[in-house]
Amino acid sequence: MIQRLVHLAPKSRGFHLVTDELLSAMPELSQIECGIGHFFIQHSSASLTINENADPDVRGDMERYFLHAVPEDAPYFKHVVEGPDDMPAHIKASLLGSSLSVPVANGRLLLGMWQGIWLGEHRIEGGSRTVVISIF
Amino acid sequence: MIQRLVHLAPKSRGFHLVTDELLSAMPELSQIECGIGHFFIQHSSASLTINENADPDVRGDMERYFLHAVPEDAPYFKHVVEGPDDMPAHIKASLLGSSLSVPVANGRLLLGMWQGIWLGEHRIEGGSRTVVISIF
Amino acid sequence: MIQRLVHLAPKSRGFHLVTDELLSAMPELSQIECGIGHFFIQHSSASLTINENADPDVRGDMERYFLHAVPEDAPYFKHVVEGPDDMPAHIKASLLGSSLSVPVANGRLLLGMWQGIWLGEHRIEGGSRTVVISIF
Repeated sequence: MIQRLVHLAPKSRGFHLVTDELLSAMPELSQIECGIGHFFIQHSSASLTINENADPDVRGDMERYFLHAVPEDAPYFKHVVEGPDDMPAHIKASLLGSSLSVPVANGRLLLGMWQGIWLGEHRIEGGSRTVVISIF
Repeated sequence: MIQRLVHLAPKSRGFHLVTDELLSAMPELSQIECGIGHFFIQHSSASLTINENADPDVRGDMERYFLHAVPEDAPYFKHVVEGPDDMPAHIKASLLGSSLSVPVANGRLLLGMWQGIWLGEHRIEGGSRTVVISIF
Repeated sequence: MIQRLVHLAPKSRGFHLVTDELLSAMPELSQIECGIGHFFIQHSSASLTINENADPDVRGDMERYFLHAVPEDAPYFKHVVEGPDDMPAHIKASLLGSSLSVPVANGRLLLGMWQGIWLGEHRIEGGSRTVVISIF
């Protein structure tokens, strides 16, 4: 098993395709014949998810959906000291998840043709995010 | 580690109990004493989730909930060229997830008594879906 | 690989920080140099998720969000024989997920500084919940 911390470049709030940014940090993947790649984000206001790797409008629509589905101004929120985007960010992190595991074969992730790894950056100023990559 | 692609029979939009369809493709599972079974769907408009294996109304209610929670006609959707069911399907795929991992002991999945594996088919005409099964 | 069933003490409906309760059942973790910890809940009306380990208001706000986002009285619910909290509990279980996997290094989970493991108890009287912990 190989395990490594990767620090992603800071991103704006929204969804970002980060497959290449993650994989370039783990060149040993190309030598794995059969295994699993595991990605874990060490933050509770950002997420990892798998979705379409092509039309950027899919990422924009996803962000607009989540801005509506998880409002900033819910009258019942008590955790407001870190700003109006913080509590919605925690909720989105749990809805989308902190980790991904993807099968690996012949030196590459066995993603479908239209799949990529997305970072969900749910804070307005989230800064750099750390992902632990583990490969079996 | 054993890894295999399984092509599920096409399903209508909604949630479907697929535990048996998946496991019948991986008879080697019965010889695993202690491990993990990993299931990964290679599509961004369908999902895998674990839920109740008994009353089919639970699957129907889940589908009705998601049809309400993720509307087809959101005025802010820009990705509409693939039909009104496409963008909601992407959102549901990320809310529910692309993969499952389940402990294995004594030749069977350690699911709870009331748990089964569900396919979430989020397209009206999704066709056959491919799942990569990996067993450690 | 080590695998063990843990029976969590009964909890009220809502979100509960259970990192310590889970880890105290698996002291062998402290001897793992590099691996993955996998947590699987054997129920379809409770969930596991990773989120903030500090301010308890985050857990309260999360619960209030889910009580709004998944209503008990949806007119289209057919699965009502087990009480009004049952079908929403199934939906929350699928939205949040049944399992977690977390990298392990130097004898501890590689959680971020602000991350902990939460039990989502979605029934009013859920009773004790069983989690299968597997460590590679």
